[in-house]
Amino acid sequence: MNREALELLLTDVAAGRIAPADALLRLRHFPTEALGFAAIDHHRELRQGHPEVVFAEGKTVDQVVEICSRIAERSGRFLVTRADDSVGTRLREAFAEAVWDTVGRTVHLNSSPSSEATGAPVVIVTAGTSDIPVASEAASTAAAFGAMVERVHDVGVAGLHRLVAATDVLSKAGAVVVVAGMEGALPSVVGGLVDVPVIAVPTSVGYGASFGGLAALLGMLNSCAAGVTVVNIDNGFGAGVAAARIVALRRGG
Amino acid sequence: MNREALELLLTDVAAGRIAPADALLRLRHFPTEALGFAAIDHHRELRQGHPEVVFAEGKTVDQVVEICSRIAERSGRFLVTRADDSVGTRLREAFAEAVWDTVGRTVHLNSSPSSEATGAPVVIVTAGTSDIPVASEAASTAAAFGAMVERVHDVGVAGLHRLVAATDVLSKAGAVVVVAGMEGALPSVVGGLVDVPVIAVPTSVGYGASFGGLAALLGMLNSCAAGVTVVNIDNGFGAGVAAARIVALRRGG
Amino acid sequence: MNREALELLLTDVAAGRIAPADALLRLRHFPTEALGFAAIDHHRELRQGHPEVVFAEGKTVDQVVEICSRIAERSGRFLVTRADDSVGTRLREAFAEAVWDTVGRTVHLNSSPSSEATGAPVVIVTAGTSDIPVASEAASTAAAFGAMVERVHDVGVAGLHRLVAATDVLSKAGAVVVVAGMEGALPSVVGGLVDVPVIAVPTSVGYGASFGGLAALLGMLNSCAAGVTVVNIDNGFGAGVAAARIVALRRGG
Amino acid sequence: MNREALELLLTDVAAGRIAPADALLRLRHFPTEALGFAAIDHHRELRQGHPEVVFAEGKTVDQVVEICSRIAERSGRFLVTRADDSVGTRLREAFAEAVWDTVGRTVHLNSSPSSEATGAPVVIVTAGTSDIPVASEAASTAAAFGAMVERVHDVGVAGLHRLVAATDVLSKAGAVVVVAGMEGALPSVVGGLVDVPVIAVPTSVGYGASFGGLAALLGMLNSCAAGVTVVNIDNGFGAGVAAARIVALRRGG
Amino acid sequence: MNREALELLLTDVAAGRIAPADALLRLRHFPTEALGFAAIDHHRELRQGHPEVVFAEGKTVDQVVEICSRIAERSGRFLVTRADDSVGTRLREAFAEAVWDTVGRTVHLNSSPSSEATGAPVVIVTAGTSDIPVASEAASTAAAFGAMVERVHDVGVAGLHRLVAATDVLSKAGAVVVVAGMEGALPSVVGGLVDVPVIAVPTSVGYGASFGGLAALLGMLNSCAAGVTVVNIDNGFGAGVAAARIVALRRGG
Amino acid sequence: MNREALELLLTDVAAGRIAPADALLRLRHFPTEALGFAAIDHHRELRQGHPEVVFAEGKTVDQVVEICSRIAERSGRFLVTRADDSVGTRLREAFAEAVWDTVGRTVHLNSSPSSEATGAPVVIVTAGTSDIPVASEAASTAAAFGAMVERVHDVGVAGLHRLVAATDVLSKAGAVVVVAGMEGALPSVVGGLVDVPVIAVPTSVGYGASFGGLAALLGMLNSCAAGVTVVNIDNGFGAGVAAARIVALRRGG
Amino acid sequence: MNREALELLLTDVAAGRIAPADALLRLRHFPTEALGFAAIDHHRELRQGHPEVVFAEGKTVDQVVEICSRIAERSGRFLVTRADDSVGTRLREAFAEAVWDTVGRTVHLNSSPSSEATGAPVVIVTAGTSDIPVASEAASTAAAFGAMVERVHDVGVAGLHRLVAATDVLSKAGAVVVVAGMEGALPSVVGGLVDVPVIAVPTSVGYGASFGGLAALLGMLNSCAAGVTVVNIDNGFGAGVAAARIVALRRGG
Amino acid sequence: MNREALELLLTDVAAGRIAPADALLRLRHFPTEALGFAAIDHHRELRQGHPEVVFAEGKTVDQVVEICSRIAERSGRFLVTRADDSVGTRLREAFAEAVWDTVGRTVHLNSSPSSEATGAPVVIVTAGTSDIPVASEAASTAAAFGAMVERVHDVGVAGLHRLVAATDVLSKAGAVVVVAGMEGALPSVVGGLVDVPVIAVPTSVGYGASFGGLAALLGMLNSCAAGVTVVNIDNGFGAGVAAARIVALRRGG
Repeated sequence: MNREALELLLTDVAAGRIAPADALLRLRHFPTEALGFAAIDHHRELRQGHPEVVFAEGKTVDQVVEICSRIAERSGRFLVTRADDSVGTRLREAFAEAVWDTVGRTVHLNSSPSSEATGAPVVIVTAGTSDIPVASEAASTAAAFGAMVERVHDVGVAGLHRLVAATDVLSKAGAVVVVAGMEGALPSVVGGLVDVPVIAVPTSVGYGASFGGLAALLGMLNSCAAGVTVVNIDNGFGAGVAAARIVALRRGG
Repeated sequence: MNREALELLLTDVAAGRIAPADALLRLRHFPTEALGFAAIDHHRELRQGHPEVVFAEGKTVDQVVEICSRIAERSGRFLVTRADDSVGTRLREAFAEAVWDTVGRTVHLNSSPSSEATGAPVVIVTAGTSDIPVASEAASTAAAFGAMVERVHDVGVAGLHRLVAATDVLSKAGAVVVVAGMEGALPSVVGGLVDVPVIAVPTSVGYGASFGGLAALLGMLNSCAAGVTVVNIDNGFGAGVAAARIVALRRGG
Repeated sequence: MNREALELLLTDVAAGRIAPADALLRLRHFPTEALGFAAIDHHRELRQGHPEVVFAEGKTVDQVVEICSRIAERSGRFLVTRADDSVGTRLREAFAEAVWDTVGRTVHLNSSPSSEATGAPVVIVTAGTSDIPVASEAASTAAAFGAMVERVHDVGVAGLHRLVAATDVLSKAGAVVVVAGMEGALPSVVGGLVDVPVIAVPTSVGYGASFGGLAALLGMLNSCAAGVTVVNIDNGFGAGVAAARIVALRRGG
Repeated sequence: MNREALELLLTDVAAGRIAPADALLRLRHFPTEALGFAAIDHHRELRQGHPEVVFAEGKTVDQVVEICSRIAERSGRFLVTRADDSVGTRLREAFAEAVWDTVGRTVHLNSSPSSEATGAPVVIVTAGTSDIPVASEAASTAAAFGAMVERVHDVGVAGLHRLVAATDVLSKAGAVVVVAGMEGALPSVVGGLVDVPVIAVPTSVGYGASFGGLAALLGMLNSCAAGVTVVNIDNGFGAGVAAARIVALRRGG
Repeated sequence: MNREALELLLTDVAAGRIAPADALLRLRHFPTEALGFAAIDHHRELRQGHPEVVFAEGKTVDQVVEICSRIAERSGRFLVTRADDSVGTRLREAFAEAVWDTVGRTVHLNSSPSSEATGAPVVIVTAGTSDIPVASEAASTAAAFGAMVERVHDVGVAGLHRLVAATDVLSKAGAVVVVAGMEGALPSVVGGLVDVPVIAVPTSVGYGASFGGLAALLGMLNSCAAGVTVVNIDNGFGAGVAAARIVALRRGG
Repeated sequence: MNREALELLLTDVAAGRIAPADALLRLRHFPTEALGFAAIDHHRELRQGHPEVVFAEGKTVDQVVEICSRIAERSGRFLVTRADDSVGTRLREAFAEAVWDTVGRTVHLNSSPSSEATGAPVVIVTAGTSDIPVASEAASTAAAFGAMVERVHDVGVAGLHRLVAATDVLSKAGAVVVVAGMEGALPSVVGGLVDVPVIAVPTSVGYGASFGGLAALLGMLNSCAAGVTVVNIDNGFGAGVAAARIVALRRGG
Repeated sequence: MNREALELLLTDVAAGRIAPADALLRLRHFPTEALGFAAIDHHRELRQGHPEVVFAEGKTVDQVVEICSRIAERSGRFLVTRADDSVGTRLREAFAEAVWDTVGRTVHLNSSPSSEATGAPVVIVTAGTSDIPVASEAASTAAAFGAMVERVHDVGVAGLHRLVAATDVLSKAGAVVVVAGMEGALPSVVGGLVDVPVIAVPTSVGYGASFGGLAALLGMLNSCAAGVTVVNIDNGFGAGVAAARIVALRRGG
Repeated sequence: MNREALELLLTDVAAGRIAPADALLRLRHFPTEALGFAAIDHHRELRQGHPEVVFAEGKTVDQVVEICSRIAERSGRFLVTRADDSVGTRLREAFAEAVWDTVGRTVHLNSSPSSEATGAPVVIVTAGTSDIPVASEAASTAAAFGAMVERVHDVGVAGLHRLVAATDVLSKAGAVVVVAGMEGALPSVVGGLVDVPVIAVPTSVGYGASFGGLAALLGMLNSCAAGVTVVNIDNGFGAGVAAARIVALRRGG
């Protein structure tokens, strides 16, 4: 729409209906998104087919459903995160083909999926069983953003042999997401075993001096393994997006 | 310069040398500041005559002097903050008319001052003598940004009669900057005495559980007096700018 | 009342009924508010017509209603903040003409409003939809303290074009209140676009390492844009008062 | 009992039934409290008639009642703190003459009160109405430990005239307890007005960057007024005991 | 001086030279300290003979000497704290009779000492030898404020027998100051042995997770012994003043 | 099973069915636990008979029961920690001979207990009655790991005579676990009385500046008594395991 | 060498010189790295030609030089980070062809560089001039790990037009490293402009409540832009490695 | 001496020179250490031959030498920790046979060593080379307290194969001390490999969000491996003592 207004303005200048000086003045008040920014946004959307994301926490069920409906009409695809049972139930009623990950608390709709995902997978590694919900959020998100996903569970550092048994899976990864609470040591160990980017997700699993995930967060930020980057506590979504972007590069995305 | 390029483009469109569609394409790659943003910047500079500000800490003396020289050529006015003795000495050698506030560690050049500042002053209140350097930075900054400044020193809350003696000065203020370390209680007391905006500046003055100004900062953020806002620890500069902007409004700025 | 007692004392001295030395002694025990302080308070109330403010959190519904009733009798105007549904409902029953902002959780009574607010508005900018309750508190407060208010919602820094589209509204502001959670980056961006005072309100919106708003608070205190001041986490009320005081100055208040 | 055992041992030595060397050996295994420590305890109890104190939080109602019953049998006097409604109700049923402070959540039994308290009172000053429960705990505790108590409410630093009006009461104090949340500035101001010990009690009243009373605590620890000491957040009990001990000294206790 | 002005005013009223109404107007602008506050200050000074205190840290040697000279002229007595070697040397040159505590870093002048201190002493207890400088500051301060002082060194909680050996000294105390770094456990133990007020001074002695005295501070605030109050980290001065005020009460001060 | 595969491989090499070079290749993909690690694990299990541990918090009752059933089939022994009432009830229904510690919230099954525990006991010392649940978790855990356990309750540092009365029990300990909240001073005192390892367990008991056990944790980490080590807040389980390992050494384990 | 020992063992088994059962026993004591782990390491080194990295801080110049010499002999390539002037000077003397980045404090030797780097560059964006040293460390590291690097300086969020002017460079990036101190807002803004992975590096630039980079760190962790990951404060090295790994994927690395 | 006084008293009682009642009175004033406590101390010293320990930090060289001389006269053995070069040099001059660990900064004198240490060693494991000084302090301390010590260096978790290569040494340990900075993950990994007590020592090695060792400390406290206990940051001494006590138990100490 703004693009049209801009075209109209330039046509008027070309036709002599508006003087260049007046056009200059009007341009100063043009919404900028008509220009540079919007172009970028458009480019991204065309190429990658990313879904729009709705963070359900703190919204009413009605609000979430309404937002999703509007998105679905426009683009046919959305991803809802932090969806509790009532949100999930209602969305499944409204969008029968939506996929609800009850553990990771995501609901994903993609009415026109592109061809099968290929290339190096995002491998999601979990230290303990309590970290699985956050890992599931990461997995569902990465998948919704077009990545292949494989998962390795319960390979905490106090039992290294379990992790070593997973080296085969790790060696094929295009990116690794490591989800861990408590002392958050797993990303350092994984980072020493692979040579692809490792994204560490601290979880709020723990008690006492874990301070709601702070211990794991600090541990990961101070990882002695190079190439480890970190996202916010319990932020499976953020890790999933970042990992999907990385493997998209490998696919020539 | 960009403005000129833009004018040229529009003239070309008007002259039929460039088709509207091609102009649209070029506009997408135009530096945005040619448009909306730059206009805002220009507007501000014309109206208020603010100096450009150089934060000297972490720069070599040579770097500061060179930056200042280039600014002075273009606009004839600059403000250097966190200027230690060597910076101050060198700047005074290079710019004889510059004003060096050795306590507040600022150097101010204004080769074409506008007419005398008028209107309600910024009143800068200090809890203890150790808070004076930060207060001086605020005072010199506010003055450099065009405000009248009055100062009240050493009126800490443990001796209220000293503060009460200053009510005359306070009652004329257009904005009050309160600089205090330790428990940072003074802004609450001042905020209860005046009805103009109060900007609180916590200082790193104190020891032990002052934690480098954290105690004062938290105290000020939790002030029970309405209308108190806070800047960073030791940030006399920020308070000075904010206060100058407030009284500029009163002057019809 | 104390004023009368003081007049009486001086009259007695004038009439020789009390010796100067005795009067001196009595003056030492006179309540101070009969003098300097009270005058200040009186002055403020006359000039600005500010409502008395009741912070409802931690009080029973009955307590809030009783306090409001007493205030209403005396001055005809009050502002209740942090009013939950039961408080709001009861106050509306008791004061039919009171205005209840259910989102910002304020109830405002003003039985004799002065003439329409004029002058530069307080513009309240919100980063995300979850920040709206705090923004509403700021808006209702600023309005109750006599300011015109305009609002711009959902212009977070990860989608700059939305903010740029709002430059028209921003350019007319007398003061800007920026409400943001998570990383609290919006005030810096807004501070670079306007030349009026910017008051930043961190909100507790976020999770994990947002630590209940601490991340946003620290971000705002360290803003690289000059002229930004900060209030407590979720303190929409404080920002509203401060902003109203600023634009009151512009109005010649 | 141990005392008797000790006497017996010495009698046996005197009678030659036990050799000094053997007695020495046995003494090494004697419970120490038979000696120095116990003496101290005994001395204290005789002189001051302090009640035994029961912290009810985290105990069942039955546990509290049983503990109190045993204490009452032995000494006829107890003080229960952090007593919720169910604890208070049950204790009043069991001990009709007990005094229940529903605001300060204390229950006090003293079946043989000594003669009326005299001497300089403990003055308890409160910044805001939300601080009253903690102030009440301090008041009831100080009274239970034998002190006279006077109270001054709602004299926060943003309205100094209210505090100044209370100087008469303050000037008679033997010790002052100042209870304040938010920025915790009140003790500094009071500390500048009196020359008796001031005990500051930070409360968890506030929100956002008050961090559950941390802001007030740090403010009080950094007080610029000499002679201010601090207790834990919401620890009205501790302040009450300390203040009662101070005025007991004045009474020649 | 203000007192004189006030007397003059009243005399003028009495003489009919000034009308009561005009006097009322003038009184509103009278410095408040001429009245209530000043009276209190005067009262205190007369009764207790407290020295004025100069905090030397952050002041130049010249500044300290000049301030002290002016105080000495007026009152003949001062106390300088945080005096390093250069300050101490210069003050001893200027005031031959001043007492310099090189360990506690205080310099005390009292040219007209009142009669010998009597009554219950302030007992200052130190956990380790590294805590002695802070303890000395407390001791010199308490003495300067008129208290008798006794000291017990090196009685840390990991060797209880040393503390127990000091019970004789403790039992005579009017107030106890306990100075300790590291875990700050000593005040709890001492608080269980005495029935007079205990003032705990955390020191910055320690390393690692002592966090500059934070561990000791928190430990003391959470003391399980009733009647313990706390001052800022390393604040020997504050503890000394508070303790001196307490024993002054006992002396009937 | 992997062991068998490994044997098979070597037999095939010996039989010439597989060439050494091919065997080398296959070895590179062998799960490591077939080798070094597994051996260690096996060794430990044989010698000590440790139960497998299930942390019940955050798991459903059904999940806990199912996990325990599988463990019980394989090894006949498990230890469940953080078992609430519903978990405890269900486990007792399923395993009649399991021992449920309702205070420490553990359930222990050991269907083939080895001969009676002997040797130096683990002594578990508690500061206050509120610390008993954590102490019970430590006690039940240490017992489940094969240690003898003795307990000493309610010997907080503010009443030293109670602790001194327990020196007999302490003197026989092979390891001491000290459980304390609030200021966490008890381990320092105990550490000065014994010469065996002391494991300190901070608890979240306290309020205000105890910050959920942080004060006790820091106090214990800064203990002035040598030989004190610390576990996480409320981590009775960890202390129990560590203490059991220590006394197992003494038993020649 | 271990590989050889392993081959020998298998050959012996094949030759019948060692029985399979004995070989099994010996395998249990084989260093694990002879197998799985070492293979991974070897693979990585062959494919990517990563240099070995030496963190110079906390090592003597002699130690650094010796370590580098040994590495250079073996592989002909190393990267030294946190190299101060003396380290840099000595390394340049010893290795004439080494590249010393005096701003980023790195020294890089690569005696047999592979063919020219191609593919999408790592774009390194800096908020302020003080962030340049950390950005340089990231740039030199990414280059040493084989990536093309482009840099954009001084595009802080308070002057958005400068960032917008850089959209061309950003649109070609394979990964973006954003280096910022103070409030750390830049990654959120950049993250909204690009669709490749963004790695945020908080710097310790700032003062007061920046708390040595904590404010920037928290801001970045709470970024509202998806796909942003974070490394430790001032960790340009870690960001450089992670970014190089990402673009290596795109190159089909 | 006290012992003699006590014997004398008992002898007097036996001889009838002092009545039992009088003896009882005198016993109440006897220094307690004459009894229970001293006995314990004596017992410990006899059995274990522990050296007295001097913490040199914060003491002058002269003070350290004097203290050591007095200790040496009495017991012939001491251990000095945190000894810088000047302390070490002077002590070696004064005590030629003292052993100076220049890396761990300890000086140990033992003029009459008992027979060779035997039994299970304390194994000290280090994550990186920068952790070696703290590890050396632990090693020298453990040796001074009678333990055998073995060391494993540079086995950080990002290169697990190095740690696995050390399993032989680890399997013989009586106690393991793990010294690590940065993320502090090593103790969890080691704790999963051994079944003896593991003592974790966080070091202040790291930068940025390591916060002087806080990250490592929190990581270790939250270790997912059971049986790990923790000491203060950089507290190699404390870990050495605790480990020596543990293996002393095994030796039947």
